[in-house]
Amino acid sequence: MRSHFCGQLNESFIGQRVTLCGWADVSRNLGGVCFIDLRDHEGIVQVVAEPDNPAYAVAADVGYEYCLKVTGTVRARHSVNSKIATGAVEVVAESIEILNTAATLPFYNHENPGEDIRLRYRYLDLRRPEMQRTMRTRTALVQALRRHLDAAGFQDIETPILTKATPEGARDYLVPSRVHPGEFFALPQSPQLFKQLLMMAGMDRYYQIARCFRDEDLRADRQPEFTQLDMEFAFVTEQDIQDFVEGMIRGIFREVQGVELADPFPRMTYAEAMRRYGSDKPDLRIALELVDVAELVKHSEFKVFTDWAGHADGRVAALRVPGGASLSRKQIDDLAAHCAKYGAKGLAWMKVEDLTKGRDGIASPIAKFLDDATLQAVLAAAGAKEGDILFFGAGPYKTVCDFMGALRLKVAKDLDLVAEGWAPLWVTDFPMFEWDEEAQRYVALHHPFTAPKVDDVDDLVANARTAVSRGYDMVLNGNEIGGGSVRIHRTAMQSTVFDLLGISKDEAQAKFGFLLEALQYGAPPHGGIAFGIDRIAALMAGTESIRDVIAFPKTASAQCLLTSAPSPIPDVQLAELHVKVREPE
Amino acid sequence: MRSHFCGQLNESFIGQRVTLCGWADVSRNLGGVCFIDLRDHEGIVQVVAEPDNPAYAVAADVGYEYCLKVTGTVRARHSVNSKIATGAVEVVAESIEILNTAATLPFYNHENPGEDIRLRYRYLDLRRPEMQRTMRTRTALVQALRRHLDAAGFQDIETPILTKATPEGARDYLVPSRVHPGEFFALPQSPQLFKQLLMMAGMDRYYQIARCFRDEDLRADRQPEFTQLDMEFAFVTEQDIQDFVEGMIRGIFREVQGVELADPFPRMTYAEAMRRYGSDKPDLRIALELVDVAELVKHSEFKVFTDWAGHADGRVAALRVPGGASLSRKQIDDLAAHCAKYGAKGLAWMKVEDLTKGRDGIASPIAKFLDDATLQAVLAAAGAKEGDILFFGAGPYKTVCDFMGALRLKVAKDLDLVAEGWAPLWVTDFPMFEWDEEAQRYVALHHPFTAPKVDDVDDLVANARTAVSRGYDMVLNGNEIGGGSVRIHRTAMQSTVFDLLGISKDEAQAKFGFLLEALQYGAPPHGGIAFGIDRIAALMAGTESIRDVIAFPKTASAQCLLTSAPSPIPDVQLAELHVKVREPE
Repeated sequence: MRSHFCGQLNESFIGQRVTLCGWADVSRNLGGVCFIDLRDHEGIVQVVAEPDNPAYAVAADVGYEYCLKVTGTVRARHSVNSKIATGAVEVVAESIEILNTAATLPFYNHENPGEDIRLRYRYLDLRRPEMQRTMRTRTALVQALRRHLDAAGFQDIETPILTKATPEGARDYLVPSRVHPGEFFALPQSPQLFKQLLMMAGMDRYYQIARCFRDEDLRADRQPEFTQLDMEFAFVTEQDIQDFVEGMIRGIFREVQGVELADPFPRMTYAEAMRRYGSDKPDLRIALELVDVAELVKHSEFKVFTDWAGHADGRVAALRVPGGASLSRKQIDDLAAHCAKYGAKGLAWMKVEDLTKGRDGIASPIAKFLDDATLQAVLAAAGAKEGDILFFGAGPYKTVCDFMGALRLKVAKDLDLVAEGWAPLWVTDFPMFEWDEEAQRYVALHHPFTAPKVDDVDDLVANARTAVSRGYDMVLNGNEIGGGSVRIHRTAMQSTVFDLLGISKDEAQAKFGFLLEALQYGAPPHGGIAFGIDRIAALMAGTESIRDVIAFPKTASAQCLLTSAPSPIPDVQLAELHVKVREPE
Repeated sequence: MRSHFCGQLNESFIGQRVTLCGWADVSRNLGGVCFIDLRDHEGIVQVVAEPDNPAYAVAADVGYEYCLKVTGTVRARHSVNSKIATGAVEVVAESIEILNTAATLPFYNHENPGEDIRLRYRYLDLRRPEMQRTMRTRTALVQALRRHLDAAGFQDIETPILTKATPEGARDYLVPSRVHPGEFFALPQSPQLFKQLLMMAGMDRYYQIARCFRDEDLRADRQPEFTQLDMEFAFVTEQDIQDFVEGMIRGIFREVQGVELADPFPRMTYAEAMRRYGSDKPDLRIALELVDVAELVKHSEFKVFTDWAGHADGRVAALRVPGGASLSRKQIDDLAAHCAKYGAKGLAWMKVEDLTKGRDGIASPIAKFLDDATLQAVLAAAGAKEGDILFFGAGPYKTVCDFMGALRLKVAKDLDLVAEGWAPLWVTDFPMFEWDEEAQRYVALHHPFTAPKVDDVDDLVANARTAVSRGYDMVLNGNEIGGGSVRIHRTAMQSTVFDLLGISKDEAQAKFGFLLEALQYGAPPHGGIAFGIDRIAALMAGTESIRDVIAFPKTASAQCLLTSAPSPIPDVQLAELHVKVREPE
């Protein structure tokens, strides 16, 4: 129906007769000549309908977002429009065909409407050049990933969507079975067990761009269904996996973004990341680091410090923020409130106004509790300079990490201390288990199929609390973009880990019996990783929200505003599925 | 963990030290030397453990499917095993490490166990070289398709799995919403409406290797979830679409199978396909064709013939089967029983034993009802030769097509009349509607979004019964491997088609309101096609069952024997989803 794309035309086409299809982006009549900005997925070009031409009458009727077919000749423009790629030319129309009209629009392309109306009319939203760009970035990302994996001999294998309920922490979406009354399929939270089974099936190297489902209360940036690049390798160590995927990620950033990531990526243990950044996914674009000061303040008169400095599971940490002395009381209060969300009971601070004046050069509600030597030691340890503010957190180790880590991110953003660019790293040596005080049992930090560093079952049982796993995360600019591990490949170890997690033999059998059985038949050593495609695409596209890189996303209340899903279903249809709606009590 | 793959070794590696990982395919002790056939995804190589080596003691313990790591040196074999690619060499083991043992196997690799046990232990089944091969064919197919589509500028865009119930004929799988009590998502039967919306969203060319779901009673070769290559193009005619995808399919057969398909594919209207082959997906590897004989027999004394020959919607057709005179009475009865399944009330036949003897050379229960002239005319029309059998079907047009078409397939298979090779074709010009006698209304032959050939709404309404659509199917060796159409892109036509299908305004609004609304905002002309990936993969792999190209398929009763899905769910979990199991009445 067309000879060229709108966005493709430039001076080299002058004199050519072209047929274009697209949408009327803008149309206007100036001095008796009709101008239409015709837009397709490649870009925009100006179409001119002159009054001596039959196309003029048609052009005069054209409204916003009319779908048009235009035939005409490319010529140079009198005044070049440098804002668009085709700005040096225009198309003088011979004929304009209205392929479809458009009703009055709910919003115009150049507006930035609210997200609800964008989602309701997603087909109009996606026509906007900005959304065309983000969606193309996603396509380019996925294509680049596939190229790398295909070239490396990975098999792209699909695993079931209708599968068994095997909770991995989040709630399952369930699907009633018509053929088996009272039974349900679950949608996979990830293809974890299937990819392990594929390794046991001799598939050697597997990948899948896999849809995953979690029925969770949606935080700002989660979706009920999301996409991960799921990978698994047989006969490998964690180093083999990390080397391969690090090269792959470097490759796709080179190909899609034209940037070179660090080679190799920095590496950090979980313990170091928590200690220096208060986070297991530190944003290394931010230079700020936590400094432990417990030893220095343990004999001070500030009770919160001394209490936690002397506590085996306590932490007292300082965060130096360059230029932070300019923060107002209100700003400091806001930061303290932010910390409180992460468990802080309070936030001590110290402004370094003049280092030559000793104690008098420090503005701080807590300085008075520290003697001169302690004060100087703390300032020295933090590397304080004039104009800085130091924040202090004290409390249980994990809590201090959480809120001081959150503080680090917020204050860096507020004070524009986040460097440009890309900061990837590996975080390794995660604890195998976390002790859940409430449930009085261990929970798995990754998932229960992650191998411990020790090979020996008795060793693991004896040292469960301090055991380290063979798991690893890839972090980019403070986002965990990928996570994986070497898996357990022996029945005895898998059963032991289930035991330690308080999963009874019966429960393990009911949920994971097929895995335990499969491990008995010569399961190979194997491991893998999964990457969050939505997040990586959003990072590449430079958008905050993963909704901008998903064609038809759902709202925070898990609705599709375009199709009105979910929706009520006639009872007769539910009867076929052997379920009924439960009336509210 | 390894330096080479087992299947990779050959004489060029002689003298090299290698480390291999894999499974013990066979292990045996001959004359005090241990031989292990070590298998990985690339193939099998013989490992030798000699008694003077420490590896010998380990090798002696190795059982079937033990997972091993072997280090040793490649040397020439005394007696070459020409059955395997590595048969000229063997690896003399220095060390053998048992990475994992294996329990007694439920079946051995070289057996051909029943399908239930294969599915129950799918990880063992998939290790078999035959299954490794079929799964690789599928990977190669999908990779080749993506290469073609990426090169042609298609965007790979994901559409939702949790979506709105919009019946397309089959039953939906439903997913209760936790957040919206009493409401349900449906799993998509196809991304049909989303891909149309993507065209309205200016995406221009879209594809997706998409999972689709139909809750149907499973015939031998259907799956609750299946995979299609879903494609859509904006600003195209059917010829554009067909040209592109025909080239793509030719390309993938060249790349994956090394065969050249016809160029161009033969084309046939629906009417011609039904007339000549009794099927809208004719297997052109079979030369047999139906011949209409109504005109010749309408004055005969065979009442079934004369009744239907004179009926406006009737058909009397003959099928000549070369060599069929050798069929026994029992074989003919079996064929008649097969036809009965497709609606035949009986199956008349005529064996051509000796053409020189006139009527006496014909063995047939019905010859006596035909006078000499009629008999000769029928023989001539069918092109009868000595040794042939002619079968005759009479009845309603569609029924005769169905059972004579089924007969054609079965008799060709029974008598080995199916040629080798690949026979693709396009079937076009499908009726827009079929009249459903039972429901006393039209049903859509493709789906209700298919455009009619006529552009004019009044014309369609006036001629609905004979209206032809802009739909098309790609058929390969008797399988409909792809089906598509140009879609309706204007609101008035879409509403009219809903009307003709007996969908009320309210129902149309409730189910498809978002589509009708989207059509109002400058929807472009668009069309597309979807290909059945499972079927194409099975055809390429040369297997009858699509289950052989699906890693974890379900049984005919929609169960996963490996994971035991579906399964019962605790009521407390159902309560969260606002549903409960309906007790049987």
